[in-house]
Amino acid sequence: MGISNQVVFSCRKVVQSTREAIVTLQKRNPAIQPLLAILQIVEELLKLNDDPKVHGIYLHLPPASITSRVLNTLKPEKDIEGISDLNMGRLIRGDLSKGFVPPLASAVLDLLENHGKTVLLVGGEGPLQLAVQCLIERSGMVTLKSHWSSKTLQAQVMQADAVVLLDVGNMYVPPTWIRPGAAIIYCKPAPEKGIALYVVFPINLCYNEHEMILKPSINVVRSCSRWLKGQEYRPWHLRSLKLQPLTPVPSDLEISRAQIPKPVDQLAEEIGLLPEELEAYGRSKAKVRLSVLERLQSQPNGKYILVAGITPTPLGEGKSTVTVGLVQALSAHLKLNSFACLRQPSQGPTFGVKGGAAGGGYAQVIPMEEFNLHLTGDIHAITAANNLVAAAIDARMLHEATQSDKALFNRLVPSVNGVRKFSPIQISRLQRLGIRKTDPASLTPEEINAFVRLDLDPSKITWQRVVDTNDRFLRKITVGQASSEKGQIRETGFDIAVASEIMAILALADSLGDMKNRLARMVVGTSRSGQPITAEDLGVSGALAVLMKDAIKPTLMQTLEGTPVFVHAGPFANIAHGNSSVLADKLALKLVGQDGFVVTEAGFGADIGMEKFFNIKCRASGLRPSVVVLVATVRALKMHGGGPNVSAGAPLPREYTDENLRLVAGGCHSNLRKQIQIAHLFGVPVVVALLIVINSTDTQAEIDLVCQIAKECGASDALPCNHWAQGGRGCSELAQAVKEATSKPSDFQFLYNTEMPIVEKIRTIAQRVYGADDIELSPEAKTKTDYYHQQGYGSLPICMAKTHLSLSHMPDKKGAPTGFVLPIRDVRASIGAGFIYPLVGTVRGLQTRKVKGLFTCELELIFLNKV
Amino acid sequence: MGISNQVVFSCRKVVQSTREAIVTLQKRNPAIQPLLAILQIVEELLKLNDDPKVHGIYLHLPPASITSRVLNTLKPEKDIEGISDLNMGRLIRGDLSKGFVPPLASAVLDLLENHGKTVLLVGGEGPLQLAVQCLIERSGMVTLKSHWSSKTLQAQVMQADAVVLLDVGNMYVPPTWIRPGAAIIYCKPAPEKGIALYVVFPINLCYNEHEMILKPSINVVRSCSRWLKGQEYRPWHLRSLKLQPLTPVPSDLEISRAQIPKPVDQLAEEIGLLPEELEAYGRSKAKVRLSVLERLQSQPNGKYILVAGITPTPLGEGKSTVTVGLVQALSAHLKLNSFACLRQPSQGPTFGVKGGAAGGGYAQVIPMEEFNLHLTGDIHAITAANNLVAAAIDARMLHEATQSDKALFNRLVPSVNGVRKFSPIQISRLQRLGIRKTDPASLTPEEINAFVRLDLDPSKITWQRVVDTNDRFLRKITVGQASSEKGQIRETGFDIAVASEIMAILALADSLGDMKNRLARMVVGTSRSGQPITAEDLGVSGALAVLMKDAIKPTLMQTLEGTPVFVHAGPFANIAHGNSSVLADKLALKLVGQDGFVVTEAGFGADIGMEKFFNIKCRASGLRPSVVVLVATVRALKMHGGGPNVSAGAPLPREYTDENLRLVAGGCHSNLRKQIQIAHLFGVPVVVALLIVINSTDTQAEIDLVCQIAKECGASDALPCNHWAQGGRGCSELAQAVKEATSKPSDFQFLYNTEMPIVEKIRTIAQRVYGADDIELSPEAKTKTDYYHQQGYGSLPICMAKTHLSLSHMPDKKGAPTGFVLPIRDVRASIGAGFIYPLVGTVRGLQTRKVKGLFTCELELIFLNKV
Repeated sequence: MGISNQVVFSCRKVVQSTREAIVTLQKRNPAIQPLLAILQIVEELLKLNDDPKVHGIYLHLPPASITSRVLNTLKPEKDIEGISDLNMGRLIRGDLSKGFVPPLASAVLDLLENHGKTVLLVGGEGPLQLAVQCLIERSGMVTLKSHWSSKTLQAQVMQADAVVLLDVGNMYVPPTWIRPGAAIIYCKPAPEKGIALYVVFPINLCYNEHEMILKPSINVVRSCSRWLKGQEYRPWHLRSLKLQPLTPVPSDLEISRAQIPKPVDQLAEEIGLLPEELEAYGRSKAKVRLSVLERLQSQPNGKYILVAGITPTPLGEGKSTVTVGLVQALSAHLKLNSFACLRQPSQGPTFGVKGGAAGGGYAQVIPMEEFNLHLTGDIHAITAANNLVAAAIDARMLHEATQSDKALFNRLVPSVNGVRKFSPIQISRLQRLGIRKTDPASLTPEEINAFVRLDLDPSKITWQRVVDTNDRFLRKITVGQASSEKGQIRETGFDIAVASEIMAILALADSLGDMKNRLARMVVGTSRSGQPITAEDLGVSGALAVLMKDAIKPTLMQTLEGTPVFVHAGPFANIAHGNSSVLADKLALKLVGQDGFVVTEAGFGADIGMEKFFNIKCRASGLRPSVVVLVATVRALKMHGGGPNVSAGAPLPREYTDENLRLVAGGCHSNLRKQIQIAHLFGVPVVVALLIVINSTDTQAEIDLVCQIAKECGASDALPCNHWAQGGRGCSELAQAVKEATSKPSDFQFLYNTEMPIVEKIRTIAQRVYGADDIELSPEAKTKTDYYHQQGYGSLPICMAKTHLSLSHMPDKKGAPTGFVLPIRDVRASIGAGFIYPLVGTVRGLQTRKVKGLFTCELELIFLNKV
Repeated sequence: MGISNQVVFSCRKVVQSTREAIVTLQKRNPAIQPLLAILQIVEELLKLNDDPKVHGIYLHLPPASITSRVLNTLKPEKDIEGISDLNMGRLIRGDLSKGFVPPLASAVLDLLENHGKTVLLVGGEGPLQLAVQCLIERSGMVTLKSHWSSKTLQAQVMQADAVVLLDVGNMYVPPTWIRPGAAIIYCKPAPEKGIALYVVFPINLCYNEHEMILKPSINVVRSCSRWLKGQEYRPWHLRSLKLQPLTPVPSDLEISRAQIPKPVDQLAEEIGLLPEELEAYGRSKAKVRLSVLERLQSQPNGKYILVAGITPTPLGEGKSTVTVGLVQALSAHLKLNSFACLRQPSQGPTFGVKGGAAGGGYAQVIPMEEFNLHLTGDIHAITAANNLVAAAIDARMLHEATQSDKALFNRLVPSVNGVRKFSPIQISRLQRLGIRKTDPASLTPEEINAFVRLDLDPSKITWQRVVDTNDRFLRKITVGQASSEKGQIRETGFDIAVASEIMAILALADSLGDMKNRLARMVVGTSRSGQPITAEDLGVSGALAVLMKDAIKPTLMQTLEGTPVFVHAGPFANIAHGNSSVLADKLALKLVGQDGFVVTEAGFGADIGMEKFFNIKCRASGLRPSVVVLVATVRALKMHGGGPNVSAGAPLPREYTDENLRLVAGGCHSNLRKQIQIAHLFGVPVVVALLIVINSTDTQAEIDLVCQIAKECGASDALPCNHWAQGGRGCSELAQAVKEATSKPSDFQFLYNTEMPIVEKIRTIAQRVYGADDIELSPEAKTKTDYYHQQGYGSLPICMAKTHLSLSHMPDKKGAPTGFVLPIRDVRASIGAGFIYPLVGTVRGLQTRKVKGLFTCELELIFLNKV
């Protein structure tokens, strides 16, 4: 067995290295040897404990070195000798599922088989003797005990069916003492064989010796297979948290506070993560290392479920709560492995009227405050990285405007102890400039000029600063007004942090290396000669990767019912693709295993979020969705059926509070039908989830009607879900329906080939997804499209920036509008993230989420009472 | 014993509650009872495990409920029955220092004392029997074993000196079987007494019963005293990390990378922190909960050492490395408990020419990247909080400019389900306005007007936005230029994040409540009628406290030699006080205990950082320093003795590389003498640390001269320290000298009484610390001073904003200038932080650290190779 050999080898190496350490230390100073040797053994052990390639540690050390401290350091999972306190206790209690039986004890037991009922143990003491005795008795035999010095030893030997002589030394039992048919087992150390001891047993009056060399490696194989088994698919033994929903449903924060989350390391263990794969951030959040992907690479993926919505009202239609409710139902009620993958909310709106974004009612991620504020710092890291680029742009322009080529060159390639060297990213830039030199001294003045001058056109800088605060006054600003900036004044602005291209990159990257490359490729503006200037040209791409090195690890949290959730990335669904990260989905798909479910969510309506999920995210990840859950509410359907406008803060018109089957049917036949059709365009089955919101006035007839029409429109199934008031239990039927739908064949296909010209890709989406007759590009959009083709960006997928309030570009056109031409105002590109984003219609405020006010809001008031 | 009673009570309550849970569940549905009951027990146990008031858990449960899962959940430290696997293993191995002996086993052993050598165990099985046997044998007796059904039972009983009958049931041993003088111990359950069993023993031919009720509480007392012992002072058993310094000394990053830090939870355990007091952030950083202060409140504080410096050269003089080197020496070499308290560096300069700030050479905090980037997010939290205030200011001005009183009131006090309520912070504001009402409906229109209109004067807003990036173009900007902001254009700027008043508050707060109050008091500007407007007036103080709730916990890290470090807060030493946090110092002083040392550091020269440490930080904290370590370098002393200017990047003039005793003596007699005198003004002894920097050319004669003159000037001792090249070992003599200095009497006193007028306090500092003849206030400074007195801020301490490059206000005046009048350009106030800061001379760039450029820097290049 290849693996175990490798492992035994590792163990031997360790043994040698610790022995060598002791020998070396002994030579140096015999007086301080013992303590130092123990410290070194402890250090060795700590490394081996953490080494995923070592599955067993055999302490081939002098007994004096096996101190309490050494034993306590040894990880019980790797203690193949079964000598740690925990493993000894397990053995004594008879729980052998986790620990290891000391090889000597188990060899003795094998030899004793069929040798009668009464066994005499002679000599030996301490844990090992007790372990032997315990095993013998547990197998139904009776033990008697004696000592070498006992006067009755001969009599006892003669009565026994078998005699086990532990810790033999030079002692000897004459064959004449032995009853015919009885056996004697000698246990002797055999140090020169590198292994603890060997076993001899006699038959009849003369000794019939069978030497048996004990291999501690027998338990390494066991440890190894346990480890391998740990990698295999298994249903989780999840301790779900009990929910006792109250009526009326309390506030989200009250519900969240009432539930004590499991310690995140416990959750991690339950879902098969190894302790070394976890980086805790406090008690209830942890980052998960990407090495899990490597460990589980041969594990088949689980089913991949996308939660999308119909075109929403301005109030939002609760996709997040469906995502959370669905995994609560799958994991805690149907006992199926399942994971939710959510986006990290922007911290800005948390303090605005919107409040948090952890779900709602009895379908939430907990603790809500930690989900909404800071989390594990990913958005802060993005802000730092984004603004480092911005600072580098302005500083670079200032320096280029005020310094000679030589001065710039000296700053960029400084002499360190008399030596000048290009960094790898500088060599990269040189290569893009067509300069194949690596020695700074060999550059000609022209080459130095080309190298040091990015020559950015101030009017063509596309990079903005970001802030994770709803700060409307930063939308448009003038910078550089201090005298120290020498008049390099420029108009620019701040976006909300989650709108940064770096956020989109985080969501699409599938490894640290991929992220680094994407960060390097980000285009921040254009030179005066029309060349795109990248983050790598600015020389900051390495720094960006360092700032983002922890952000790339998804954060593990849990739902109100104790089921696992990944929170990772949160790109906007307008200028970016609005989906959580590829890496979180990939990790979750491996962790749930082949019969498990990963539920992920796409922002806005299915025409936007889902389309981008399929054409951008699935293209980047290579993952294939099994089912789309399409979320609808009676309220939104009535609006699409012709109901009056709804807006936040204002009371709902009567149409929405009284039964109105006509409006419901109208909405179903227009918007719901169209959104189902869009999913079918991609060959993916649809289950409709009709969300019963808190304080709902939906009637049974309305609910039944929606479900009936949805099925007529081709949905595999359609069900109301009531997780808001009941948690996972209120979503069980939906979960069952989703499970059944995943067993149907899914025939996923992309909507367009990326090699098509940009305009054709835009047209395809407009016509087939939105239902437009055609598209119309502004002159600016045309110019840009040509420029991108010329720069080699033509084969990127398309990320439409369109209003989410209508299938068309006109927010007021509800239902499923037809007969319109989609205007493309401008076309922009996120080269690092890897998509082209056309700006549709006259959408305003694309870059900064609108702030409704920074007055006291409910969330703040509640928080306030706490602190 | 008060505590143990309380604990036993807790345990009983638990037992009852789990039993009740089982009963309840049984009633409801007998079929699902077992599993659910176990889940409930597990949940109970998890809570009890974490409850610091419960020191023992006694599982008074039916045997079927004590499953593997239950046993594995029980925290071994609280397993007073000694039944968990780990405790059983410890018992078997004979290590009783940590686990618990099962009460039955230890009672049996007590009873057996003096009853002969041979003990027969009858009945019973499993761990308990083995535990009894193990204890008997360890105490030197011989055990024999039998079963109730054994034919030879009578014979065996007759031979034994004592018989222990476990698991008796209805069985009975006739008195006639018993050898005269032998004893029989019966162990029977006694469930109705609420405790597991009782013990009976017979003497002679008739039974002489002694009933003995076993109290599991016996081990609770033990657990409790262990816990109490854990609170007491003890020398740490620190596993120090071995250093093998190389020559020449490699780069800081190479040194940092070559050392593997201990897991932070291990470090925490070594220094006496409880697991529940730790919130890990990854593997090598953890936040420490403030509850430690409460737990250790009766523990005496350790010695409090301040590291300050002479007036530095522009290159900096290495106070951080002395701080780190000193604790490495104290902890790892002198084996004294010691803690370093450092400031968190601003992330901005890390990517500028400055690089990181984790120390240097072989005296560093590791891992360096984590120390320098993000850390545990405190600066990000400060940025978010600071910018929330800024956004609230501008949004509020816009809303007040465009809305009626009624509309504003409706937004501020919205009707939720028909009910309007003031928040506590709004009631606070009403009280400041003299309105003693709590019902929103009862306000008169005038009162509403006063309440809703802050009426901020745009020209008197003192609050700036912040960013943790060296972004020079944000120093002076114009905001609000988008059309949506309706022409409310305003000139403002960004500071570096660490210059935020919130950072100064973090450093001075001594509890969550204190921080919240300080945040509320922050003055952001002045109304048109001249009233100060606070963060509480803006209604954001609750939100700020929530954003900062984790930042208030100090972060635990370690030095290169594995000794503990707190990193917490990092206010600038110009406009703020430049010291690390009060809370970190307080926690560290408790953790090191009475014979331990806490080494903390003050920014800039002793005239600035140390003066503020004494007059501001010690005043706020109530802590008293024992010793000042004054850091000097030969280089800086030569400069003060009249050597030519030095500047970053330029080669050092020959005066600094060749021996020059005249310059050295000059520097010692001027600047060094003066700085020692300043410390003595406060009554604190001084030890001078002469830092031998990397690649030093200092000669032995120069070093000796400095040490000699320093002692002549009144230093308790003066020593060179070579930790840069050698780690703690190079600093051992200094550590020894510091230890000796702490045994001298320290007679600490403040320099001024805060009740003195502001101008008098400024004059006192100028004359007694800086050596000025007098001060001269500008008209603006005079007006401000009067305004602060009038507003009731007159009794705040003073935080001078002065150049750090000279004792005077003139950076070029080295040595110890005299005969100058200190000009006070302006006087400002940080009301939340709690100090008045006069701006001295014409210092520029006070608010934004100067950016030398954002070109590639060494750190970035090295980082780059990693990712």
